[in-house]
Amino acid sequence: MAGLFVTLEGSEGTGKSSNITLLTRFLQKNGWPVLSLREPGGTAVGEEIRSILKRIDIVPPPGPEAELLLFLASRAQLVRERILPALQLGYVVLCDRYFDSTVAYQGGARSLDMATVRAINRFATGGCIPDVTFLLDLPPEIGFRRIAARLDGCRDRMEGEAMDFFHRVRATYLQLATNEPQRFYTVDAGRPLPSVQRELRRILLTILESKGINPGQLAPRQWR
Amino acid sequence: MAGLFVTLEGSEGTGKSSNITLLTRFLQKNGWPVLSLREPGGTAVGEEIRSILKRIDIVPPPGPEAELLLFLASRAQLVRERILPALQLGYVVLCDRYFDSTVAYQGGARSLDMATVRAINRFATGGCIPDVTFLLDLPPEIGFRRIAARLDGCRDRMEGEAMDFFHRVRATYLQLATNEPQRFYTVDAGRPLPSVQRELRRILLTILESKGINPGQLAPRQWR
Repeated sequence: MAGLFVTLEGSEGTGKSSNITLLTRFLQKNGWPVLSLREPGGTAVGEEIRSILKRIDIVPPPGPEAELLLFLASRAQLVRERILPALQLGYVVLCDRYFDSTVAYQGGARSLDMATVRAINRFATGGCIPDVTFLLDLPPEIGFRRIAARLDGCRDRMEGEAMDFFHRVRATYLQLATNEPQRFYTVDAGRPLPSVQRELRRILLTILESKGINPGQLAPRQWR
Repeated sequence: MAGLFVTLEGSEGTGKSSNITLLTRFLQKNGWPVLSLREPGGTAVGEEIRSILKRIDIVPPPGPEAELLLFLASRAQLVRERILPALQLGYVVLCDRYFDSTVAYQGGARSLDMATVRAINRFATGGCIPDVTFLLDLPPEIGFRRIAARLDGCRDRMEGEAMDFFHRVRATYLQLATNEPQRFYTVDAGRPLPSVQRELRRILLTILESKGINPGQLAPRQWR
């Protein structure tokens, strides 16, 4: 693939979306073609699925198995419709959550069978693995304090889970990072946003440079 | 399980829903508690998923992988929210399509990897296998002639597939029936509806009797 596939992972309130927004602007400003995506969603099908997963008026809500399959349906579509074509065009693809989220949330925290979670993940992604994964690490209590401080203070269904759940999410993420040190960069997300952002940029520029990916070598910004 | 799990399978225009409606009325009239379901759908989550799969204004439509995962998400929810509780209460559960549809459509006709399709199916259903499966068999050309004759003549996305696709569906169904003769009953759906219905009732009553399931022994009709 000509481009670079970068995912941001981490529990609630770790600053994934803020950091993706800032990274996207920074890379675009410096001439890289960037595609910024979020999971679940990012396609027409995926946004419909996202609304099923986020709505609290669907009663009973999806059980753990249906939830996993919905996340993976959204991902399967995202890979084929957006990620692979953009990587082929040489884009830097930034994705807010990807398959490590499924392993951490559905495998680790909901205790679904890990081998099955991985097998279905492989089917959904067709083997499309990120080049780089930033794990924004933070104790869940701090993440939720940040969320509560947001003006609206709204919590969706996932954020209504017990704190113990998010401790299991964090533990699984840290284990994944330990297992794959060549792909994962664990970043202390407890620091102020500008400091975290500086570290992400530094790591990303080093990787882009080491892979010989310069803005000039990439395809023009023809992606929507 | 106290009840009996019966699925109806077959390609388009084979009379699955008409036969389910008639079977439901017949069994209820004779004192059996019946739960009649359709796939995808049958739960709040599943009906949302059904609308994603049936809508033609979602562009691009779901690819084969996303389509499979959406079907299975709906099924996972249906098994846990409706089928298993009803079987535990002693109901006869009649389901318009179940996992054999996935094997025939996504595995056989769309050529997704059959072993993976089966593995994800097992995860979705948690091993909940029908006691009886009626395969309503018909050459696809005849099925589509019947559909075209319907007053509205509308075709959803699935019915817009090429005829060759439905020949592969039929061939896979027939192979499944050959592989599992103890579960499958293949019924010639080319005959008039009353004749097909008589055969289904005869087979079903024989099975209910052989399993010692009488109307009086079952739980009262407390299911919605």
